[in-house]
Amino acid sequence: MSVTAAQGFTAAGIAAGIKENGNPDLALVVNTGPRRAAAGVFTSNRVKAAPVLWSEQVLKSGQVSTVVLNSGGANACTGPKGFQDAHATAEKVAEVLGRGAIEVAVCSTGLIGLLLPMDKLLPGVETAASQLSEHGGEKAAIAIKTTDTVHKTSVVTRDGWTVGGMAKGAGMLAPGLATMLVVLTTDADLDDEVLDKALRAATRTTFDRVDSDGCMSTNDTVLLLASGSAGVTPGYEEFAEAVRQVCDDLGQQLIRDAEGASKDIKVEVINAATEDDAVEVGRSIARNNLLKCAIHGEDPNWGRVLSAIGTTSAAFEPDRLNVAINGVWVCKNGGVGEDRDKVDMRYREVHIVADLAAGSETATIWTNDLTADYVHENSAYSS
Amino acid sequence: MSVTAAQGFTAAGIAAGIKENGNPDLALVVNTGPRRAAAGVFTSNRVKAAPVLWSEQVLKSGQVSTVVLNSGGANACTGPKGFQDAHATAEKVAEVLGRGAIEVAVCSTGLIGLLLPMDKLLPGVETAASQLSEHGGEKAAIAIKTTDTVHKTSVVTRDGWTVGGMAKGAGMLAPGLATMLVVLTTDADLDDEVLDKALRAATRTTFDRVDSDGCMSTNDTVLLLASGSAGVTPGYEEFAEAVRQVCDDLGQQLIRDAEGASKDIKVEVINAATEDDAVEVGRSIARNNLLKCAIHGEDPNWGRVLSAIGTTSAAFEPDRLNVAINGVWVCKNGGVGEDRDKVDMRYREVHIVADLAAGSETATIWTNDLTADYVHENSAYSS
Repeated sequence: MSVTAAQGFTAAGIAAGIKENGNPDLALVVNTGPRRAAAGVFTSNRVKAAPVLWSEQVLKSGQVSTVVLNSGGANACTGPKGFQDAHATAEKVAEVLGRGAIEVAVCSTGLIGLLLPMDKLLPGVETAASQLSEHGGEKAAIAIKTTDTVHKTSVVTRDGWTVGGMAKGAGMLAPGLATMLVVLTTDADLDDEVLDKALRAATRTTFDRVDSDGCMSTNDTVLLLASGSAGVTPGYEEFAEAVRQVCDDLGQQLIRDAEGASKDIKVEVINAATEDDAVEVGRSIARNNLLKCAIHGEDPNWGRVLSAIGTTSAAFEPDRLNVAINGVWVCKNGGVGEDRDKVDMRYREVHIVADLAAGSETATIWTNDLTADYVHENSAYSS
Repeated sequence: MSVTAAQGFTAAGIAAGIKENGNPDLALVVNTGPRRAAAGVFTSNRVKAAPVLWSEQVLKSGQVSTVVLNSGGANACTGPKGFQDAHATAEKVAEVLGRGAIEVAVCSTGLIGLLLPMDKLLPGVETAASQLSEHGGEKAAIAIKTTDTVHKTSVVTRDGWTVGGMAKGAGMLAPGLATMLVVLTTDADLDDEVLDKALRAATRTTFDRVDSDGCMSTNDTVLLLASGSAGVTPGYEEFAEAVRQVCDDLGQQLIRDAEGASKDIKVEVINAATEDDAVEVGRSIARNNLLKCAIHGEDPNWGRVLSAIGTTSAAFEPDRLNVAINGVWVCKNGGVGEDRDKVDMRYREVHIVADLAAGSETATIWTNDLTADYVHENSAYSS
């Protein structure tokens, strides 16, 4: 049900011809409720795509009535013309729907450095608007796919209110948001400050800790829109947890569909002195190409885990480090531990625990293995 | 001629049986000159192999009479027993050669987390000592190979004095020294302080800027030994430049032999506000897996260069960035530049210039492309 699971939202997804292969490439999500509160989190990449620059402006008011999303082109590194195109897209949506352009957020995904075919995109907005429906969430989720093999949606329903969402992302997945476009909707009656707090809390421990290939996108956008249509105002903690659950579920779906991956790797850092230490160590492990190759080869190569830990500034003593792979403590006290032949790595999910023995904080980073398929997918085609 | 090009050094390389395949795996480099001055630079990885911990102690005196090196095992993450083994190796060398163990540096390379077969290594020291020769540099260079397909040596000769050296390294190549063992020798008559200054200056702009796969080793060691046998004391600048040239040449050889690579990529950052900015940006570009895949596919994907620059803290304005690939300015002012179809990427060397338009500093980082062969080599075998 995606973004239309919550009351007070319509959506549509169509093929506007932006993608040369004729696949769906344009989506609209419209807030039809009494409220138009919204919050957004954007890429921390300093090279930001035009739609990100536009949408950051939109979100300053805490009000979003509509989100227009396209795949088939990132509209990044496209200069002033690219920004004009993002603006023109918002104006077109505003005109067609009779709303203010400054409440229209714009998201784009696809190849960097190409201008969007506005002669196809703008007519597509009209077509999409004509197909808006309370059941359109699925089609919207499909229209934002790029190299995704499946579309991603998630819904959490509580007593009288709902949080739902859709996501795309399969490559250039990295921190400070994995490369993704995400739209979350809720019919709870909440203001933009509460939405912002809940969204930032949720992304910090979910999307921000999905690190498929260490490459940060220019277009990452996560939006949360509230319609107020349910007429219910949940407590903050309950609401924040629901948002976190949807983000966590969507983040997992991104990892499971990462380009060329054959393993989903959960890197759990425990007994760190601080949470920042745990995150730094987790990321360093998650980005170690040699380790990612070893996991692909089902080789429990814990030496590569230790060498990755050693590059960080986290508090630890080398001779107190412990590492478990799929439950077997192959490294104890910085040296050889249990028999590595006991490690069963036949399954898709691999669980690495790095024990820093320096405190009580923890963090989990999700990543994928590095495969020949990843290389092929990212060398054979511009994307 | 390797480490025996300079007068006052003998060397040997033999097969001690540390490697199961019977290839050469043990080398000795002995200073026979009137001086035993030395300097060393070691991995900045906080998880340091036992031989690194030992050799760091040795270098504190500024005196090294002998270097013993083995391939076939890194002696890293091997706990107290591993340190005892490194110490015992130095003691054995000292006993056989009639020298003090505290002047014997030890270097190891190979798989992390396995104890060395001391029953083979120690007898091997005796065999190697019996074969020491003024012509042994080549054999020593061969004995330290791991996944290297060729051995690496370099020599610079000046008026009456020489700097020569050998290197190994093909994977886990990253900064704070690429994963490597390097021994440089000179017959110039210089003290350890001059050697240290020249060596640090040289590695800072050569080995430290070789970044094949972003993975930092536990064993990196670069040593410079001076015998004084030439009886010549060159000026500092002239000597430092000779050391830099040898380091640069060996660094290039490491890149050209990197595991699975099909392209050698020179990332030149120009017009940076500071040299640190230039290095940070160069490293970020050099470590971007998506870009490395694109280069492998001969795709001049400058958007991935910009997204890598955008993750740094360097001074720049996104709309003033320029990028050239093999001489074609495919990105100008943060947007589309010259026709990307003009970029010829058929040859092994690829030259990326990133113009930050923020100052006048520059730095060059060397890296490789990311290939299916790299994945295969690092997933199919423990190394």
